[in-house]
Amino acid sequence: MGVIDELLANNEAFAARVEDTHLAVEPSRHLAIVTCMDSRLDVFAALGLGDGEAHVLRNAGGVITDDVIRSLALSQRKLGTREVMLIHHDDCGLQTITEAGFREELQEASGVTPSFAIESFTDVEADVRQSILRVRRSDFLPHRDAVRGFVYDVDTHALREITAEEPNTGPESERD
Amino acid sequence: MGVIDELLANNEAFAARVEDTHLAVEPSRHLAIVTCMDSRLDVFAALGLGDGEAHVLRNAGGVITDDVIRSLALSQRKLGTREVMLIHHDDCGLQTITEAGFREELQEASGVTPSFAIESFTDVEADVRQSILRVRRSDFLPHRDAVRGFVYDVDTHALREITAEEPNTGPESERD
Repeated sequence: MGVIDELLANNEAFAARVEDTHLAVEPSRHLAIVTCMDSRLDVFAALGLGDGEAHVLRNAGGVITDDVIRSLALSQRKLGTREVMLIHHDDCGLQTITEAGFREELQEASGVTPSFAIESFTDVEADVRQSILRVRRSDFLPHRDAVRGFVYDVDTHALREITAEEPNTGPESERD
Repeated sequence: MGVIDELLANNEAFAARVEDTHLAVEPSRHLAIVTCMDSRLDVFAALGLGDGEAHVLRNAGGVITDDVIRSLALSQRKLGTREVMLIHHDDCGLQTITEAGFREELQEASGVTPSFAIESFTDVEADVRQSILRVRRSDFLPHRDAVRGFVYDVDTHALREITAEEPNTGPESERD
């Protein structure tokens, strides 16, 4: 039996075991969580999250890309979420490659250069800060101040918070 | 106590309760799952998935975007996954908006038109088929034939499979 068939059998048993429910499409905790696709992070278990409580967005790295902004815009504007929780983690696959190296690999394999950034990184805390800033700077999001960022330790299962430092970027900050 | 603080307290209890582990970054089942951010879909529970087994990618709709291709490319080329399981679902937030309407809303709010598609849809089965085709057509992915698509019923928790039909698009298909 293939892997997907095994998961389908698991799902059949799950659907038979649990009660039918009818929960609203709007998350009851008004929260969106953005995290990495990493296989060692069971978001519901690690955060004690229940069904229907929060949107869960996941990609390579848990970085804020246009696709995440698209999803958060829908989440906030149509489905009532107001807070964003970002969770990156140690020992990430994106730390094992370089932007230039992986772009070249994709170009060699396909003949074309990808039109998107790879989003590789070395310093996980700096990457969390970047993601916090990308949320805060997005004009498409009505609720961008209530964003907090964390690093998940895939071995100990514990979270540690990362505080964003706003860089001094212009004339206004010079007045301080 | 705020929502995120509650989840942090849950995580603290979780990390104290479960054993420390050290799992490899490569998913043991060589599988990537792409699904929606919807709050009613606990992927690990619904599929009987264990820690370290599969990558889990989630965005609004579970649609295949450039960000998902970026993530799958890393997943397949660097972290050893070879199969893709797509899970969309009924009663999706993306079915409540239109492409034009939401683009206009974002433009009015920010002053600029988004450079990305909203990916709204009406027919969930057609949307699964589109996502299957997008995986199959991506030159960035080395393993694009082993892709299967499903619709999850958020009330009964059951999956149903959707088979992709390859459209006749060119001279080759006319030969059949």
